[in-house]
Amino acid sequence: MNTHKPFAKKYNSSNYPQSAVTTMPTQNTYVPAKEKITMRIPAIQEGVRIIPISGVEGIGANMTAFEFKDDIFIVDAGFSFKDESAPGVDYILPNTKYLEERKHKIRAIIITHGHLDHIGGLPYIMPLIGNPPIYTRLFTAIFIKKRQEEFPHLPALDIRVVEKTDTITVGDTPLSFFSVTHTVPDAMGVIIHTPYGAIVHSGDNKLEHENGIVAQNEYDEYAKFKDLNVLCLISDSTNTERPGFSVPESLVIKTVTEIIKHTHGRIILGAFASQLERLMFILEAAVASGRIIIIDGRSLKSNFEIVHQLGMLKIPSESMKTMDEMHMYPPERLLILATGAQGDQFASLMRAANATHRNLKIVKGDTVVLSSSIIPGNERNVQKLKDGLSKRGAKIIHYQVSDVHSSGHANGDEMQWIISQIKPKFFIPGHGYHYMLVANGEVAVRAGVARENIVIPDNGMIIDLIEKGTKIYIQPERAPSAKVMVDGSSVSSDFQELVIKDRQALSEDGMFVIVAVVDGSTGALRKSPDIISRGFVYLKESQDLLRIVRTIIKRTIEEVTMQHDMNTIDGDYLKHVVTETVSRFLMQKTAKRPVVIPVILVV
Amino acid sequence: MNTHKPFAKKYNSSNYPQSAVTTMPTQNTYVPAKEKITMRIPAIQEGVRIIPISGVEGIGANMTAFEFKDDIFIVDAGFSFKDESAPGVDYILPNTKYLEERKHKIRAIIITHGHLDHIGGLPYIMPLIGNPPIYTRLFTAIFIKKRQEEFPHLPALDIRVVEKTDTITVGDTPLSFFSVTHTVPDAMGVIIHTPYGAIVHSGDNKLEHENGIVAQNEYDEYAKFKDLNVLCLISDSTNTERPGFSVPESLVIKTVTEIIKHTHGRIILGAFASQLERLMFILEAAVASGRIIIIDGRSLKSNFEIVHQLGMLKIPSESMKTMDEMHMYPPERLLILATGAQGDQFASLMRAANATHRNLKIVKGDTVVLSSSIIPGNERNVQKLKDGLSKRGAKIIHYQVSDVHSSGHANGDEMQWIISQIKPKFFIPGHGYHYMLVANGEVAVRAGVARENIVIPDNGMIIDLIEKGTKIYIQPERAPSAKVMVDGSSVSSDFQELVIKDRQALSEDGMFVIVAVVDGSTGALRKSPDIISRGFVYLKESQDLLRIVRTIIKRTIEEVTMQHDMNTIDGDYLKHVVTETVSRFLMQKTAKRPVVIPVILVV
Repeated sequence: MNTHKPFAKKYNSSNYPQSAVTTMPTQNTYVPAKEKITMRIPAIQEGVRIIPISGVEGIGANMTAFEFKDDIFIVDAGFSFKDESAPGVDYILPNTKYLEERKHKIRAIIITHGHLDHIGGLPYIMPLIGNPPIYTRLFTAIFIKKRQEEFPHLPALDIRVVEKTDTITVGDTPLSFFSVTHTVPDAMGVIIHTPYGAIVHSGDNKLEHENGIVAQNEYDEYAKFKDLNVLCLISDSTNTERPGFSVPESLVIKTVTEIIKHTHGRIILGAFASQLERLMFILEAAVASGRIIIIDGRSLKSNFEIVHQLGMLKIPSESMKTMDEMHMYPPERLLILATGAQGDQFASLMRAANATHRNLKIVKGDTVVLSSSIIPGNERNVQKLKDGLSKRGAKIIHYQVSDVHSSGHANGDEMQWIISQIKPKFFIPGHGYHYMLVANGEVAVRAGVARENIVIPDNGMIIDLIEKGTKIYIQPERAPSAKVMVDGSSVSSDFQELVIKDRQALSEDGMFVIVAVVDGSTGALRKSPDIISRGFVYLKESQDLLRIVRTIIKRTIEEVTMQHDMNTIDGDYLKHVVTETVSRFLMQKTAKRPVVIPVILVV
Repeated sequence: MNTHKPFAKKYNSSNYPQSAVTTMPTQNTYVPAKEKITMRIPAIQEGVRIIPISGVEGIGANMTAFEFKDDIFIVDAGFSFKDESAPGVDYILPNTKYLEERKHKIRAIIITHGHLDHIGGLPYIMPLIGNPPIYTRLFTAIFIKKRQEEFPHLPALDIRVVEKTDTITVGDTPLSFFSVTHTVPDAMGVIIHTPYGAIVHSGDNKLEHENGIVAQNEYDEYAKFKDLNVLCLISDSTNTERPGFSVPESLVIKTVTEIIKHTHGRIILGAFASQLERLMFILEAAVASGRIIIIDGRSLKSNFEIVHQLGMLKIPSESMKTMDEMHMYPPERLLILATGAQGDQFASLMRAANATHRNLKIVKGDTVVLSSSIIPGNERNVQKLKDGLSKRGAKIIHYQVSDVHSSGHANGDEMQWIISQIKPKFFIPGHGYHYMLVANGEVAVRAGVARENIVIPDNGMIIDLIEKGTKIYIQPERAPSAKVMVDGSSVSSDFQELVIKDRQALSEDGMFVIVAVVDGSTGALRKSPDIISRGFVYLKESQDLLRIVRTIIKRTIEEVTMQHDMNTIDGDYLKHVVTETVSRFLMQKTAKRPVVIPVILVV
């Protein structure tokens, strides 16, 4: 029996094949993590530092930090959902390195509302920043606690419920709040009363209005700013490039309610669980017009349990039924509220569309109302959802053909009204892609903010309102802002990119692993090389290709191993030659470039 | 030296490791291709058979077949672009199996216009169906020829140019044509004068109009149908669920022209190469207002070369410059027409947005007009495009904020007008997702077609207008409609799905290949097993994980190989146990499920 040969030993360690194959060529550029790099950024003196930690180079993962004297206040801690550019990644988190290194200064984290792009990061981030107290309104607090139950190993959160009329003092700093119109109960903005003036963060907001005439309750709420000296406003920006006013939520509720009244068959209402306020109104209207409500989908059920417990939902218990009871009612008495309006593969609606739902079988006469917009990236899935529902006979009403949805974010003229009420000296658009922020900057100019007092931020930009808040200075250094990815149970920014690149390559052209066993004494292959391939071509129909490629591999290896002294052979070089030769051949024959990995064992 | 052991031989063939590892577990269900299955579908008698071969269960890949007596006429042969549900696949083609088996009957293929979803399939399909003559208008003919140049190994096409006023006879059948408003010159519909009445295929169409008042030239063109007995209309359906009339193309041209006039800096116009008619008008207007034109991007350059050669573009040669000459003109004299408005990674605009374009550096003062909509699936890429352009200082005008784009497809009321002019007895919506087809069916009802004479088709549905076209009969059998995918140089429908599934799995969680060398005489592992992994976790930071997994693998294998007679061991079972054990462990430790593949070599 052979033992390993000197050729093998030459490669890196005495255990050639093992170390050879566990070396990841695309992951070779390991650099030790930079530690404490942010500590060299000078602290703010006599003024307020504002850092949009995350949420201003895209949609989601909102987090803003405010630093003055010895205090840091954080507003929101969201995540963003995966997108196709990072296959396999679950969420993207804000990069909190700057805050981690200053966690002794963090006095509070204030959460504006209970959507995942504002609370989703909490379970991951709180342990890193010293688990500071969370200030938020009741409904949001319940949401946060509910979500935290999924992370039982984490320490309990210190959540302190505030009301929109409260003014509390945290450390030396008074905080007050204002109610904003969004799509979930208890959405609010926050006012941080610093020694240099008030800093206002709007959260996500829009206005209640009728044809652009702002509702009285909005005037009442924004009256808070009448005599307030607002140093800076950080504002929702996602829709401000759209002209005019958004479709008011009241019109959406009215439209859907009318559809319910005038539909004779079963109604299936697809919606975001996050559109809770709207759904509460609609369900109440549906019950008023004699319908029984069945809720299908975990997130919706969970949210409605909350509002039910809080006594916020005015529906008698006997009007809420389960899927199993559905058969007891005629179609015209049923309203099914279902998840999956984004075409999510395993949600209720998509299973109904694919006829894989155990209870919900779509039949002719069903009306599906999709009371939701389409999140960018989901368009094809939603098309497929509508296609499936339609094929099974459902009539489909969606936001592109009827006012059954409105965004929770203000359009340009709405935002102009809001900024005019708050009258900030400085203005920072707070959420969205750069072009959205730029559009919001223009809105602020129209609302009377001086152009030179507007900063269009990037993630991690350090915006110092210096000299007691009289001037703006942008620090040349940034707080770290590399994307932090949640990938299974791994949470990190370092090198994740290399793993993602491999996934992208594998998803395009698959893999092609070669296992060759070289006889250490002769240099000849012990047998024809083995090929393990997935996602490349259909191998059963490619036997000719495999036969030729085996011949090529054998020849390529033996040209080196049989014609040179085994002691002089560079294992890395040999693998490189095999990879290049096989890749070129496969590309010529198939026009595909699989990830080729040679494993050469010497026995 | 050891030779292979009986244990190895037990597995399938005498060459255990090789055959073992080239067996693809997810690809085991090989079934011989079904041959000639469509021949049992009875031929149509005394009537017209209509088969929407492709294009009615989604967007793209348009193809419809018409069969009567001994003739088949085909309209269009497009492809559709890849989407995220089929990673790595280049295009999806119509399934032409039904036609291949009847190619002796094919008299002509008529192409309505030169967009890729109507001509893209020609190079792949023509050889399969006997290369029949192609009938189309001049501009489309040039497009087809240009594209065919990329396939020099294919036999020449027999293209016969027709005019919209022509009536030609092919076999015994007169064909006539009508001009339709779309977005590319020479778009047309076709009228096939069968013995049982005229069959009309509209191609893609919309109307020229002003505030819903249809233009006179449309009245003139559709006057062709005044005294025509139209048995069946197959109609564009993609936008008919939208109410009212679409934004007329003339308004788009006017809007963009005004923007050009009133912009002082450089203008970069991003557009589809397929929006050729609009672009011709806009470029002429830009030159009239003193701008120099620079075209950047292969598809745009190629299209404009064609219209220039044909004398269709009224721009003096001295107004067309190249990128290298750009520096000779002040910004306010420049209009750059660039590809990549969909956020295509390597197109001109995206490179400009990423600052990787050699010539086109975006600076403050630039205005980018995106005269295009967003194709579903491209939303995130377009957001990133706008983000990058905006970051570098460009002002961005797009269709969501200004009338700088309109679709080439009629809205509901427009289509109702068109159907009313054509007055078909039977109606078949011809392109789009099922819900789009259903919406178009409703439009046809409003236009006066009897509901029972409307068929909402699937791909491959065989719709027979029997008894001389007096009745509809849907054949219980379908023409084959499995998706045919172009994947590198492979073109097939068989089993491609399994390869796609592997790519999806690899893209989510990567791969984890285990190579273990078993000593055939002792059953012990010759050394610690090798691990080859990509796209799973970052292995450099997972050395502990790897160490444990190696121990688990060794133990799992040796529990079988050292404690049983090697002759009795089932190799398949052993691999199964290793896969299960390792998968479970990795899932527990990382919450990821990589594709685990064990290779067990016995030496």
